[in-house]
Amino acid sequence: MIKKKINIAVVGLGQIGNYLLNELNTKKKDIELKTGKKIQIVAISAKNRNKKRRFNINKYIFYKNPLDIIKKKKIDILFEVIGQSDGISKKIVEAALKNKIHVITPNKALISKHGDYLSNLAEKNKVNLEFEAAVAGGIPILRTIKEGLATNKLNRVYGILNGTCNYILTEMEKTKDDFSSVLSKAQKLGYAEPGNPKLDLNGYDAFAKIRILSSLAFNKRISKQKCIMEGIENIEYKDIEISSQLNFRIKLLGITELINGKLFERVHPALVKKDSYIGNVNGVMNAVIVEGKPVGESVLQGEGAGAGATSSALMSDLLSILRGNIKFPFGIPNFKRKKPKLYNDNNSSNSLYLRLEVRDKSGVLSGITKLLADNRISIQRVIQIPNHKKKSASIIIITHKAIEFRSNKLINSFRKNKNILKKPVLIRLF
Amino acid sequence: MIKKKINIAVVGLGQIGNYLLNELNTKKKDIELKTGKKIQIVAISAKNRNKKRRFNINKYIFYKNPLDIIKKKKIDILFEVIGQSDGISKKIVEAALKNKIHVITPNKALISKHGDYLSNLAEKNKVNLEFEAAVAGGIPILRTIKEGLATNKLNRVYGILNGTCNYILTEMEKTKDDFSSVLSKAQKLGYAEPGNPKLDLNGYDAFAKIRILSSLAFNKRISKQKCIMEGIENIEYKDIEISSQLNFRIKLLGITELINGKLFERVHPALVKKDSYIGNVNGVMNAVIVEGKPVGESVLQGEGAGAGATSSALMSDLLSILRGNIKFPFGIPNFKRKKPKLYNDNNSSNSLYLRLEVRDKSGVLSGITKLLADNRISIQRVIQIPNHKKKSASIIIITHKAIEFRSNKLINSFRKNKNILKKPVLIRLF
Repeated sequence: MIKKKINIAVVGLGQIGNYLLNELNTKKKDIELKTGKKIQIVAISAKNRNKKRRFNINKYIFYKNPLDIIKKKKIDILFEVIGQSDGISKKIVEAALKNKIHVITPNKALISKHGDYLSNLAEKNKVNLEFEAAVAGGIPILRTIKEGLATNKLNRVYGILNGTCNYILTEMEKTKDDFSSVLSKAQKLGYAEPGNPKLDLNGYDAFAKIRILSSLAFNKRISKQKCIMEGIENIEYKDIEISSQLNFRIKLLGITELINGKLFERVHPALVKKDSYIGNVNGVMNAVIVEGKPVGESVLQGEGAGAGATSSALMSDLLSILRGNIKFPFGIPNFKRKKPKLYNDNNSSNSLYLRLEVRDKSGVLSGITKLLADNRISIQRVIQIPNHKKKSASIIIITHKAIEFRSNKLINSFRKNKNILKKPVLIRLF
Repeated sequence: MIKKKINIAVVGLGQIGNYLLNELNTKKKDIELKTGKKIQIVAISAKNRNKKRRFNINKYIFYKNPLDIIKKKKIDILFEVIGQSDGISKKIVEAALKNKIHVITPNKALISKHGDYLSNLAEKNKVNLEFEAAVAGGIPILRTIKEGLATNKLNRVYGILNGTCNYILTEMEKTKDDFSSVLSKAQKLGYAEPGNPKLDLNGYDAFAKIRILSSLAFNKRISKQKCIMEGIENIEYKDIEISSQLNFRIKLLGITELINGKLFERVHPALVKKDSYIGNVNGVMNAVIVEGKPVGESVLQGEGAGAGATSSALMSDLLSILRGNIKFPFGIPNFKRKKPKLYNDNNSSNSLYLRLEVRDKSGVLSGITKLLADNRISIQRVIQIPNHKKKSASIIIITHKAIEFRSNKLINSFRKNKNILKKPVLIRLF
């Protein structure tokens, strides 16, 4: 890319695309200062040309079908900000790379599903595929792993990767409101998708980010295996309150690590100590903790979502390309990225927080503790809170470390116990 | 740098140089995988060839005078790990750059003093001058500012930048020991220089880092102006204890910000809230907080010192060069970096923590409060702790915001007051 004038296309003009366009327009001079290149936006595309937007768009460079841009215009760099895991998002990225156009995208769904294929395509065509914005926008974590910590041997990366969930959990603790009313508040404030927040809440979004992080941290292909993926949809205020009394907070964690060289990825809510670092990352903040040698533990915290943080990451990708840093999208050549060996998550172990709603009559507790003993899970602490009105009681148990397959068996045996009135609650401790 | 074999020289074989050599030797394959380049160490230099070292050195490539390396060998990349602000450190870096050799250094003293000149030399000779390791080794903060947050408009960068001081303050709080005994412990553990820890303790080390950060964050030349620079040598356990009762911790902070476009840099101990993020960065940890638009607040935390963290940063610089990322050392071309306009620190304002040891007799407190009133400094809180044995008392005052030049006048008037028995203690609140 020796030439000085760079043609840019932006595909997708939702909240992020719109903010990005404005950034590109207002920072042209700064970009030229830092890279020596003059950028010009020569094509934009969105589903609806006439939708009301925060910034005005130039209708003379508008394309209804983004694929036409590649046929009709000479583009150097294309931003894909639609956000689908397949469909038009995949088609436009494919078409761009095949036509030797650099691609920048915040699309974690696309990269976590098709990242291996697309990065291969980018390498073959000697262009960049950059996706810093796909994981924790305000935190340059991918660049930190690929460059800042390049020769460290990493063994674990974990953190709070979904700002929506973290906002909801923080707000529930603060306001004592239940999940659904805090969710609608989050939607009103623009922290959760108004239509379908499911992919945030069920852990899928954090999981897609974990897959990308694993693959960069451990230099492996993206895993396809099903793993522990639990969201926060079933967290009740009651559990937040009880956890708090026990000096814990509930956080949705994403964790990836190598256990004896085998990859173990998971996303689930977890009880973390109130006075721990991760226990104090609140609101829409994201945090990522990287453990490796020789660097030790590195912590990065910043806004995880929102158009501002995402644009900041998209612009850093742009500058990297304009500075001429042609790089392997996953840090090493694709053909060197081996399939990961996978850890059997049935063998993992955690202390557990269990909450059971039971009939308030004699013998119930002893029946339950027997089930734990049968499954060789030992108890650290038991609290029984009676609810005299309903003639029921809550039993809260904190266990010592229990192996995952035994915890599963335990939960199944709880389900058969007719003294347990509701679906048992299980949250792992971290 | 098209060629595949890269010749490396390491100048300085202290703790860091030694660790670095071992890293370079053990990570050759990983480096080739990530960059396609084969590195070989062809020259090393140190004051003493026969000193006992943790790793063996190859004596066949040893040079007593590092300047001979440049005359006698073909070098591509040189590591300067001696650490002087002038003298041989400056000479060898100058000679290398003039001979079109890339330079990597963790030397904050050199860069904060001669960075403008040396980066100009590097640009003229089209080679890199990299110094990621100069600021907070385990945190890739320079790369984050130059690349990850490249197009953000930053307005403030601050944090805990000296691991030795942070260790000492943390340890004093924990053990209730006094400054000098904790210092000798830190020296035994290798956290503080055994010979002369002065540059850590008096704030100079943190200040050199702040100067480098300012210059990157605000795209200006390195400031030469004298600023507020106070260390921790005079912190007594008593102040840590009283602060703790008031729910504060004492931390050595480095802060740089733009106030109406004017640069305000300073390093001093500060009372920070116990439940704040920065109040919980303990031990040898460093933390840097970057505030900007649109990214919001980004926080980075990691080990600040030690051979491991420093080597991690040195290696990231090496990979950056091997990947062919030729860049401006300070992010933008040197001729575009203007001299900063400077803020008059006499106009800055802070709430103050004051501790006065006074004669325990009537009228003393009213005399002191009158001095505050005379200087138009208003009081938020007063605590008087009598010491009956010595017929003296400690008066602790937390003030509302006071302008720096008035605080200075106040301290001078305290010195003339014969009821004040010792040098008054002043620590700013953050």
